[in-house]
Amino acid sequence: MAQAQKITPRAKDFSEWYNDVVMQAELADHSPVRGCMVIRPHGYRVWELMQRALDDMFKATGHQNAYFPLFIPMSFLAREAEHVEGFAKEVALVTHTRLKATGKSGAQAVTPDPESALEEPLVVRPTSETIIYAMFAKWIQSYRDLPVLLNQWCNIVRWEFRTRLFLRTTEFLWQEGHTAHATEAEAEAEARQMLGVYRTFQEQWMAMPVITGRKTESEKFAGALRTYALEALMQDNKALQAGTSHNLGQNFAKAFNVQYQTAAGGLEYVWNTSWGVSTRMIGGLVMTHSDDNGLVCPPKLAPVQVVVVPIWKSDQEKSQVSGVGGQVKAELERAGIRVEFDTRENLKPGAKYFEWEAKGVPLRLEIGPRDVAAGQVMTARRVGGKAPAKLEGIAKTVTAALEEIQAGMFKTARDRREASSIRGVTKQQFIDFMKGAGGFAYGGFCGSGACEAEIKQQTAATVRVLPDPDFRSPEAPKTCMWCGQPSVAEAVWAQAY
Amino acid sequence: MAQAQKITPRAKDFSEWYNDVVMQAELADHSPVRGCMVIRPHGYRVWELMQRALDDMFKATGHQNAYFPLFIPMSFLAREAEHVEGFAKEVALVTHTRLKATGKSGAQAVTPDPESALEEPLVVRPTSETIIYAMFAKWIQSYRDLPVLLNQWCNIVRWEFRTRLFLRTTEFLWQEGHTAHATEAEAEAEARQMLGVYRTFQEQWMAMPVITGRKTESEKFAGALRTYALEALMQDNKALQAGTSHNLGQNFAKAFNVQYQTAAGGLEYVWNTSWGVSTRMIGGLVMTHSDDNGLVCPPKLAPVQVVVVPIWKSDQEKSQVSGVGGQVKAELERAGIRVEFDTRENLKPGAKYFEWEAKGVPLRLEIGPRDVAAGQVMTARRVGGKAPAKLEGIAKTVTAALEEIQAGMFKTARDRREASSIRGVTKQQFIDFMKGAGGFAYGGFCGSGACEAEIKQQTAATVRVLPDPDFRSPEAPKTCMWCGQPSVAEAVWAQAY
Repeated sequence: MAQAQKITPRAKDFSEWYNDVVMQAELADHSPVRGCMVIRPHGYRVWELMQRALDDMFKATGHQNAYFPLFIPMSFLAREAEHVEGFAKEVALVTHTRLKATGKSGAQAVTPDPESALEEPLVVRPTSETIIYAMFAKWIQSYRDLPVLLNQWCNIVRWEFRTRLFLRTTEFLWQEGHTAHATEAEAEAEARQMLGVYRTFQEQWMAMPVITGRKTESEKFAGALRTYALEALMQDNKALQAGTSHNLGQNFAKAFNVQYQTAAGGLEYVWNTSWGVSTRMIGGLVMTHSDDNGLVCPPKLAPVQVVVVPIWKSDQEKSQVSGVGGQVKAELERAGIRVEFDTRENLKPGAKYFEWEAKGVPLRLEIGPRDVAAGQVMTARRVGGKAPAKLEGIAKTVTAALEEIQAGMFKTARDRREASSIRGVTKQQFIDFMKGAGGFAYGGFCGSGACEAEIKQQTAATVRVLPDPDFRSPEAPKTCMWCGQPSVAEAVWAQAY
Repeated sequence: MAQAQKITPRAKDFSEWYNDVVMQAELADHSPVRGCMVIRPHGYRVWELMQRALDDMFKATGHQNAYFPLFIPMSFLAREAEHVEGFAKEVALVTHTRLKATGKSGAQAVTPDPESALEEPLVVRPTSETIIYAMFAKWIQSYRDLPVLLNQWCNIVRWEFRTRLFLRTTEFLWQEGHTAHATEAEAEAEARQMLGVYRTFQEQWMAMPVITGRKTESEKFAGALRTYALEALMQDNKALQAGTSHNLGQNFAKAFNVQYQTAAGGLEYVWNTSWGVSTRMIGGLVMTHSDDNGLVCPPKLAPVQVVVVPIWKSDQEKSQVSGVGGQVKAELERAGIRVEFDTRENLKPGAKYFEWEAKGVPLRLEIGPRDVAAGQVMTARRVGGKAPAKLEGIAKTVTAALEEIQAGMFKTARDRREASSIRGVTKQQFIDFMKGAGGFAYGGFCGSGACEAEIKQQTAATVRVLPDPDFRSPEAPKTCMWCGQPSVAEAVWAQAY
């Protein structure tokens, strides 16, 4: 356990605060490899809980997991023109396969063996459309082979320059769904379905409210027909893209010759979708809920949901509170609650509170001699609020409290987002809003890339999405808030991570 | 679904047979990247079931999962002399981070941008001791921080030349445990404990009998003090190393300066262990149990444990057997059994049997109109044996059958291994044995590398392990079976994968 350090207040420096929260909660650490992070056990456990929930949802919607190679032949990337352009500036390239000794010592002791140079360099996957659709071409012959509904959990490498733990790292972990369908309508339905799965997960598990919608041409995935995304608003009023789902059309099918024989005997290209969420979500979780005391984690994704802290002075008191604490722990475990009983002797209760708060444990149960005598424990919620609770039926009480905390966190975050949203903006309001506190600005949009570019250049804001019906303003805007031309769609702008 | 093809008989060409079984069961496929495989959904599901069982065991023994970078600075590998020597000839090296357009078309359209050359090339991890112990140096200060008990599930790259699906591929999936301890005795106990966990898993889940023991100096892990391994005998009487557990001593602690303050105030290097098993185990599972009809999978790791196949001629019969089949499926699912109800109309029952046999489903339930009338189903085991079973209590009957199949498969494999083992060999017996059918040869060993080298050169056999007490012959050999000098330990030799 590292020394406890003071966390920089959010109000002072949001970026420092974020870094402090991640480090103090021991979610992740910087590694000796530029831009690559280490996900520590506490952070990895959050990822495992995320994976389990998402994977269940993927399987419930008919998807199977598979695994495709880390390496992609350089020429594969080049087959889809937009795709290679989108990724050319950020790919790690493997060019050699052996080391040879130099005769020098220390860091210079070895060097790539020139004789091991590869004929064709390999790209470390920045995403797997190309290698996966090359395999689809082998597996898909007939309409009977469709749909193909696959997903893979894996690591991804994109050579990023300004990196930040979880939010943007050279290597990250994610899942990427890849599907093939007989018709455009089926592919469209799949892309929309998975966007819905992500929304359910982010709202109900992460307690993170999101806006869903379509990306503009300038923000869509390199090689996609249409990109849908989920956007969340962080506590600094900057948007975080929390996931994407793409209708890829027949772009990759044509590049990799993925054709199928129709029932009528004709030959058609398949329609693909791909969709992904990553460890970036952990950064979103941190920036949505946490405070100046550290991580605040929604109960459904908390590695430890409840910590029981015994309080004693004499040995007799210690034996009393330890006995009751052990019983409480066992009872909560039987109810399927993730609980720790912190019996460390070299730490005072206050120091324990401090540590578990930094780690985001949603509920603390304190048990002192007077509590034992009264047949109760003191409950303290990470989000605020202390109250005694009867020992009798403690598992039920705790389960209800965790559900209440989960629901409350979502409501708090949604209220905060709404308080930082402005609808039906005029150009001047928009400029002032983006210069000021910032947030989500809803307004009419003419659909032109020129307006988008000008807005980005003047305000650093981008169109996050053209929102889905659930999120649109009651009254459709008539003109572009920037240029005054007729609006083709309402848009949501924000400065973004 | 690919066209069903005939599987090459084991007796004709074991290597072709293996490849056919893997391909027909749709466990894996070759990819366009040299030496890299695609793990298809059926194979990946086996891996997921393996992961779940092992992960539970790791957590039950106090380990936590974490994730460390894919890339390792080239100089890190060089810090431990034996380690770099062991891996220098098989590492993928990342040297550039951008592509640039060449102006040419097709496969030559892009090339690594020379301006993006890295100052220090990065090694794609062939194993993670160096990067993990560099982090341990940051996290471990005092004896209070020990032990550190971590594990990571990840992909690994070793540039292999002769590759085979699952058995030896350039990229593979594995888990690697990494621990740090205050004393040599604790590290030794940990390395032995994890060897035991692997043995339990391989015997009880994979139904694959293994011999455990210590590796000789020439076969130990590059950088380890001692390596322990599990060795299984495949149906062609070649050994497969199915897992390893290393006591690394203080070698890496010294190379990466991982020191801790003792309770007495002194400064000591930690003692490390590392241990791993990989997707190679799937190859071991295939070669232990399968037959000329395809995969035979132990029930505990079978993606589909039971397939229900309805048999009908008329529409009335179809409705009858479908109703009963659906009920059976629901009842088995409620009992936690992984079951498929194969209602495809365009395939005859015989074609379905053929397909599910190739995929290794342990138990088939056939339901025809006469079965419905008699209140029964016909059960057919993948390992052989047909018998009717009453519909009443079918879940209980099936559960018992699956347990019996699991236990029977282990016994069959162990009996086969013992029938292919020879104990107390003389030199001439050994030579004849290795020229003939082959298998595990137990005999006295002088401990010299010279004998090992000569044996390998003349018979292609290597010391698989110096066996643990559980596997030693009742009478300890007195002399080396090869040179006649005094024996220092019994050894088990075999030709190996």
